[in-house]
Amino acid sequence: MATKEKAKAAVQLKTPKGTRDWTGADMILRDEIFATISDVFKRHGAVPLDTPVFELKEVLAGKYGEDARLIYDLADQGGELCALRYDLTVPFARWLAMNKVQQIKRYQIAKVYRRDQPAVARGRMREFYQCDFDIAGTYDRMIPDAEILRVIHEIFTALDENIVIKLNHRQILDGIFAVSGVPADKIRAISSAVDKLDKLPWAEVKKEMVEEKGLDEAVADAIGGYVKNSGDIPTIVALLKGDAELAANPDIQQGLDDMTLLASFLDAFGVPSTAVSFDLSLCRGLDYYTGLIFEVVAQTAAAAAAGATPEEAAASAAENGGEPAKAKSKPKSKGGVAEEIQVGSIAAGGRYDNLVGMYGKTQIPCVGISFGVDRIFTIMKAKRAKAANGRSLRVRETDVYVMAFGGGSFSGLLPERMQVARRLWDAGIKAEFVAKTKPRLPQQFKAAEDVPLGVILGEDELAQGQVRLKVLNAGGPDAADEKDRGQLVSQDDLVAEIKKLLISV
Amino acid sequence: MATKEKAKAAVQLKTPKGTRDWTGADMILRDEIFATISDVFKRHGAVPLDTPVFELKEVLAGKYGEDARLIYDLADQGGELCALRYDLTVPFARWLAMNKVQQIKRYQIAKVYRRDQPAVARGRMREFYQCDFDIAGTYDRMIPDAEILRVIHEIFTALDENIVIKLNHRQILDGIFAVSGVPADKIRAISSAVDKLDKLPWAEVKKEMVEEKGLDEAVADAIGGYVKNSGDIPTIVALLKGDAELAANPDIQQGLDDMTLLASFLDAFGVPSTAVSFDLSLCRGLDYYTGLIFEVVAQTAAAAAAGATPEEAAASAAENGGEPAKAKSKPKSKGGVAEEIQVGSIAAGGRYDNLVGMYGKTQIPCVGISFGVDRIFTIMKAKRAKAANGRSLRVRETDVYVMAFGGGSFSGLLPERMQVARRLWDAGIKAEFVAKTKPRLPQQFKAAEDVPLGVILGEDELAQGQVRLKVLNAGGPDAADEKDRGQLVSQDDLVAEIKKLLISV
Repeated sequence: MATKEKAKAAVQLKTPKGTRDWTGADMILRDEIFATISDVFKRHGAVPLDTPVFELKEVLAGKYGEDARLIYDLADQGGELCALRYDLTVPFARWLAMNKVQQIKRYQIAKVYRRDQPAVARGRMREFYQCDFDIAGTYDRMIPDAEILRVIHEIFTALDENIVIKLNHRQILDGIFAVSGVPADKIRAISSAVDKLDKLPWAEVKKEMVEEKGLDEAVADAIGGYVKNSGDIPTIVALLKGDAELAANPDIQQGLDDMTLLASFLDAFGVPSTAVSFDLSLCRGLDYYTGLIFEVVAQTAAAAAAGATPEEAAASAAENGGEPAKAKSKPKSKGGVAEEIQVGSIAAGGRYDNLVGMYGKTQIPCVGISFGVDRIFTIMKAKRAKAANGRSLRVRETDVYVMAFGGGSFSGLLPERMQVARRLWDAGIKAEFVAKTKPRLPQQFKAAEDVPLGVILGEDELAQGQVRLKVLNAGGPDAADEKDRGQLVSQDDLVAEIKKLLISV
Repeated sequence: MATKEKAKAAVQLKTPKGTRDWTGADMILRDEIFATISDVFKRHGAVPLDTPVFELKEVLAGKYGEDARLIYDLADQGGELCALRYDLTVPFARWLAMNKVQQIKRYQIAKVYRRDQPAVARGRMREFYQCDFDIAGTYDRMIPDAEILRVIHEIFTALDENIVIKLNHRQILDGIFAVSGVPADKIRAISSAVDKLDKLPWAEVKKEMVEEKGLDEAVADAIGGYVKNSGDIPTIVALLKGDAELAANPDIQQGLDDMTLLASFLDAFGVPSTAVSFDLSLCRGLDYYTGLIFEVVAQTAAAAAAGATPEEAAASAAENGGEPAKAKSKPKSKGGVAEEIQVGSIAAGGRYDNLVGMYGKTQIPCVGISFGVDRIFTIMKAKRAKAANGRSLRVRETDVYVMAFGGGSFSGLLPERMQVARRLWDAGIKAEFVAKTKPRLPQQFKAAEDVPLGVILGEDELAQGQVRLKVLNAGGPDAADEKDRGQLVSQDDLVAEIKKLLISV
């Protein structure tokens, strides 16, 4: 017995590191976010795709650069070698190549897995949801790219969240690096250094380039002169065109044509120019991007996540040199300074025209966006908690609680409560009752705490074919007012009366 | 280059064995099934729970008997040892114990993982969905159990599928084994032999008991005499009560009281007595059941899955001795005879009062049901294909396709198509257009193939502030009737006109 007790105690009652359970108000909010996002996806003609949680290891191999060390492998128990998916983009590319799909808009909302150091408070987990929307197919330049940005704008408008979409273009970056004099074999390393500019001051980034990555100091300074710029699309396009050396570079010419076209399409789509920022320091880590790249920054994220008011955040930003978006917008998974007030980018993506060709004979150009739902959830939850102002949120959808009341020889009216519940279920009404033969009335009122309506059965009323229907003040103090037994309703009218009340409560 | 090509060719474009992608009409049907099932769960006050796809290995240890060999482990990459979840019941029990939840109705719809031999045609996969609904808490006898059966009945009524719920009671089985003279240490082995009675004739089951498991032949015959009985609850209760030896066994007395109570509750809940069958041969494999056990058998499952009409199935059943439900109802994962016409049980569950106590100090009695959605999907898909009668099913939800048409100097009207699409999206209407600067009209009609409405822009009409609105016969032959350009509508009335038409098409 003692041994058995010990064995029991040894089981750790927890979820694995970096994972969590979802239920109650959290899950209801999360599902609302999913519904809002997938409604917009479907509005744009996207079809859902669901892939297995694990893929053949060789499908994932060579797609994630040095982040491949974060991939979760399944144990080799004989048979194929598999690993948990790291994102939803590679499975989508595998699916496109496997099914020889030439064009599609697809979305997928699913969990992905990264064996990274978790930071639960900031919403960085080992198991977390992504919501991806991608447009695959050969189309005219920048049309699908503009639609992706419209989708982003539409979703955050629906979620009532102020955002800025930071934009850049891989060909413009390549041109800048070439013109600055970065050797071809250093472009990737320098690119990843530039990507840190929103967390680190220029001096540190330059130090990394020169000391760690062996870049000539003059070349680093040239890069620094360019990538510090950001603003609306026409401003930055004009700036780059005004530099004769840059303007002569064919990659940059193509990139600027794309950006100009994009600005006109965003205008037609009704995406306000204040919602985007052409930011030359944006690089995006993944190798497979080939054109437009973008990252979404919540304007209130840092403040909400830190429990600070926007005013406080602005004040603190002012102390840091007056660059709130810059200083707080884009922490990477590697961690960094001032971690406690960062939520990070809440969506990111870009154009990847060569990924599908890694699997098959045909290149299928793609552009897509991935929403970090757990981070969006963290922001929305803080907002909702503030709005609720201490009131508890509903955790189940039950609309009617069926109760019984009686005197000394009270039978409990169990079959009668069951029959009423059955009648409500048959009519599609969400109803419950206490699963006890003779429940006490306070017990029934307590169980009905967050339920808006109560049906109360009594022997005398039932003899007349009647029941009592009572509005319970969900969660409020008078839910327990057991004296008021509500209005008398004929059993035959009960469903209709409940439906009427449910519209108003 | 040659090496690179070879490396490409070496990547197998497939999902791992026993897994599949879901998309298109299959995914739409699957999500319909999920929605129907979760609507019923919520109608009964259940709250959703979402747990991680993997659990600590020690949480799963010792819960699945010899099936534990089918558990997928994650590789040991340092840190905790984890494994993919095998079902949704054990994670639920872990969650209850971890959060000290005393009572709840919860549901979970999620994938589970079993390293079993896949049989794709019959819907047996290594990654598959389960939909679980469980009632946890200390309540009066058989009330939650009856509600679970009502939930089953409600769901299959909503899915328009004829089923029978086979019922049995662990205490009655224990009593029968005790009275028949089965030694206590053989009860589990004998129970698993009896469980095969719906696939194997009695002679073979008896052989297994006597020759493999060393049971006395007289004891085996005694068991055989009891477990061959099935029928409605009152009939089987009366039969067992009529046997003096059985009626004297306290386990059986308790079980019979439960079954009698259950029958009265099912009556109050409106579950017809024809929908249940008290079947003394039903054992259920898992060790953790302690009371009522049940298994749902689709009445048309075998026929639909085999592509046979119900008549053919009946005829074939007659050849097999007139026991269609018995012969085809419950193949186990171990395989067996006549596999090609079996779909298996489509839902199963029971009462498990001791599982949660394996994790914590408190026992929390539970009863629950798990729906095998992939098997339900297989049946529904066959029915739907029959009903569609060759017509193709819609794969996306787009309601309106925005097109343009013009003469020789046709500009393509791209910004105008974008503006119209924007107007529709702003109004919540699902709309698309071809992402080309100058698409040809046939190309646009082809892209709109399964879309009910078309908006056609022309320069002359636009100059008047008008567009053409046309009903496309989704998938039908005159979708390509490009001559009829539809009715002229003012741009300002477009959204209202579309909403009107969408109600009727």
